[in-house]
Amino acid sequence: MTILQQQGQAAREASHTLATAGTAGKNAALEAIAGILRERQQEWLDANRRDVEAAQADGMRPALLDRLTLTPERIEGIVEGVRQIIALPDPIGRVDKMETRPNGLIIGRRRVPLGVIAIIYEARPNVTVDAAALCLKSGNVCILRGGKEAIHSNRCVTSLMREALVSAGLPEGCISLVQDTSRETANELMHLDGYVDVLIPRGGADLIRTVAREASVPVIRTGEGICHIYVDNEADPGMAAEILYNAKCSRPSVCNAVECVLVQEDVAEAFWKEALPALEQKKVELRADERARKILGDRAVPASESDWDTEYDDYILAVRTVENLEEAIAFINAHGTGHSESIVTGNYFKAQRFLDAVDAAAVYVNASTRFTDGGEFGLGAEIGISTQKMHARGPMGLEELTSSKYVIYGQGHVR
Amino acid sequence: MTILQQQGQAAREASHTLATAGTAGKNAALEAIAGILRERQQEWLDANRRDVEAAQADGMRPALLDRLTLTPERIEGIVEGVRQIIALPDPIGRVDKMETRPNGLIIGRRRVPLGVIAIIYEARPNVTVDAAALCLKSGNVCILRGGKEAIHSNRCVTSLMREALVSAGLPEGCISLVQDTSRETANELMHLDGYVDVLIPRGGADLIRTVAREASVPVIRTGEGICHIYVDNEADPGMAAEILYNAKCSRPSVCNAVECVLVQEDVAEAFWKEALPALEQKKVELRADERARKILGDRAVPASESDWDTEYDDYILAVRTVENLEEAIAFINAHGTGHSESIVTGNYFKAQRFLDAVDAAAVYVNASTRFTDGGEFGLGAEIGISTQKMHARGPMGLEELTSSKYVIYGQGHVR
Repeated sequence: MTILQQQGQAAREASHTLATAGTAGKNAALEAIAGILRERQQEWLDANRRDVEAAQADGMRPALLDRLTLTPERIEGIVEGVRQIIALPDPIGRVDKMETRPNGLIIGRRRVPLGVIAIIYEARPNVTVDAAALCLKSGNVCILRGGKEAIHSNRCVTSLMREALVSAGLPEGCISLVQDTSRETANELMHLDGYVDVLIPRGGADLIRTVAREASVPVIRTGEGICHIYVDNEADPGMAAEILYNAKCSRPSVCNAVECVLVQEDVAEAFWKEALPALEQKKVELRADERARKILGDRAVPASESDWDTEYDDYILAVRTVENLEEAIAFINAHGTGHSESIVTGNYFKAQRFLDAVDAAAVYVNASTRFTDGGEFGLGAEIGISTQKMHARGPMGLEELTSSKYVIYGQGHVR
Repeated sequence: MTILQQQGQAAREASHTLATAGTAGKNAALEAIAGILRERQQEWLDANRRDVEAAQADGMRPALLDRLTLTPERIEGIVEGVRQIIALPDPIGRVDKMETRPNGLIIGRRRVPLGVIAIIYEARPNVTVDAAALCLKSGNVCILRGGKEAIHSNRCVTSLMREALVSAGLPEGCISLVQDTSRETANELMHLDGYVDVLIPRGGADLIRTVAREASVPVIRTGEGICHIYVDNEADPGMAAEILYNAKCSRPSVCNAVECVLVQEDVAEAFWKEALPALEQKKVELRADERARKILGDRAVPASESDWDTEYDDYILAVRTVENLEEAIAFINAHGTGHSESIVTGNYFKAQRFLDAVDAAAVYVNASTRFTDGGEFGLGAEIGISTQKMHARGPMGLEELTSSKYVIYGQGHVR
């Protein structure tokens, strides 16, 4: 048995205990985790300093370095996140539907945990606690495989969380970290059939595509976001400009930021008059098709074919002119990643047509794509935003981390 | 583009039309299918005769030959199945939950089709119509890849169904058959990423394991059934014997038949006294551990280790003695396939413990495992029985062939 198989087996065994631990038991463990993270935060800060120093020596970009760095304030925020998860309702054990069949069999469908969830993610140390807490609350064991840049922080916080689990009477196998951050262990994790029920990759598009292609364990694809806003000729240009600015500039690095605006040709002039000033202030680079460049002039560079399929995650926006709603819908269904899509229009029928025909996790009328988020949708917290259709679609909260089990009460029934 | 990619693209295009076709439009197409299958059944029967003759010449086993053969009565049954699917409620378009968020955004979750479903199955020609009708009713396009033994029957019936689709105003691409039944096309179908949203293998354990291991498109594993019955010392021996007989002998070839009985040691003698006569009448071969053989004598052969992990699909039963409930639960969780598991007991607490701790799609108290079935569970019809935890678990009816889409109504909302 390899080290990872042993870890998988410990996870599998812990999952049988955790599945029947009950809400009170799981919340007590989460309380213990919140407590130990606050009381012994200095250990975590010290470990994080080692990661940050190594990253600095390695020449990591300031933005990434900032995401890697922990402070007492950030730890306070992470602990607060754990407390919020404690306050959320426990989805496990709820019976969705139950009926007595004509033959007298009583058949119910009960929510149960998925089992063992593996998560491959990048360098943010807060993800380690967020993911572990969401899994624990939903009765799932997690195997965490963070990036090598955060390995000291992750080792420290995982070991603190495991100590908390044991103090609360749960097996430490409920949370574990892959200690070796080489590519080989990531690959082995993708093929840990029989131990891993679901693998969730969190990170860049490359990571997600690789995992989806390579893994033999079931995967949930998250966070691939080529999102569009369609500005209809019946849009209010000022509203469209505000929505576009918010969707592009409020946080360009996230998956629900817009990457491409589709503008109906008759409204283009009025729309850009409203939209350009704010975008220019943020120095947003526009990559436009020929028709749009007639209006935008040297404010835009020519778009190439690849721009219609690129997630910039940056202050860059693809711009395309369309003749009508149907052209916009067809373009979005061909080039979108099925994440978040929005129409700006005052026309009721066009709004309904867009909601019906666009194939995505979240389809908006007159709102920014930035709302696609577990918190904004009222799920309380999220482990990621699914862009696939199987199992869960859109923000994944506690409920999306569950499966079901039919429970059947008989009286000696035979068929 | 390969032939299969072209087929995939036609399917993808058809899926956009079908997704918004509406219940009346889909039911009209199903009516047209039922009509054409009845009116032109002779064409289908003729094509089937070619398959049957080829199979006879090839020396196919009588049981399989029987499953391959169509008759006017069987076609009547298949047409009746289509009519039952017409009568089922349409899951598409239902809004599971909808709320107005504190900021005024109205967010709803709407049921939508999965998109394009590929199905790889073996030689039964009725599956072609069942699967196509279930997919159509749930708004999904299907790509069917049946076995080579039924290729003439499948070509004929698929072409009839496509004619019916067009007559009802839907694209013929809604239903298509992989014309080439070589291993290469099955393999290509498993890797048709971007065209296939879900692949469902229906057939033997080998087929399912191969597809789950090889495919890069999302897969739903169905129909792997190593099912157990645990006879507790507080069971009524007569009830336990009846349940075991039904679960083993009413239809041994299906996935919800029992393969292994676990008998608590103190009840073994009383239980076997009740159970043996009926099993012997059906000449059920018992493969037992040493303790059970002390009671069963030469009525049982010794079990080998592999017997605990074998789906016989035949008149063979593995027999194992256990000391108590917990041993039974641990054994089932280690050796079961997560399909259907049953306890026979009069003890309330043991019944609840079994329901909680056994990890399977369907967990029974005092009933035969044979009830795990879409019809018996009230789903109306099923496309298979999922033994995985992601997306759907247990019998998959129309609802399990859907995904969801968040629809969000704003008033110019920005975040």
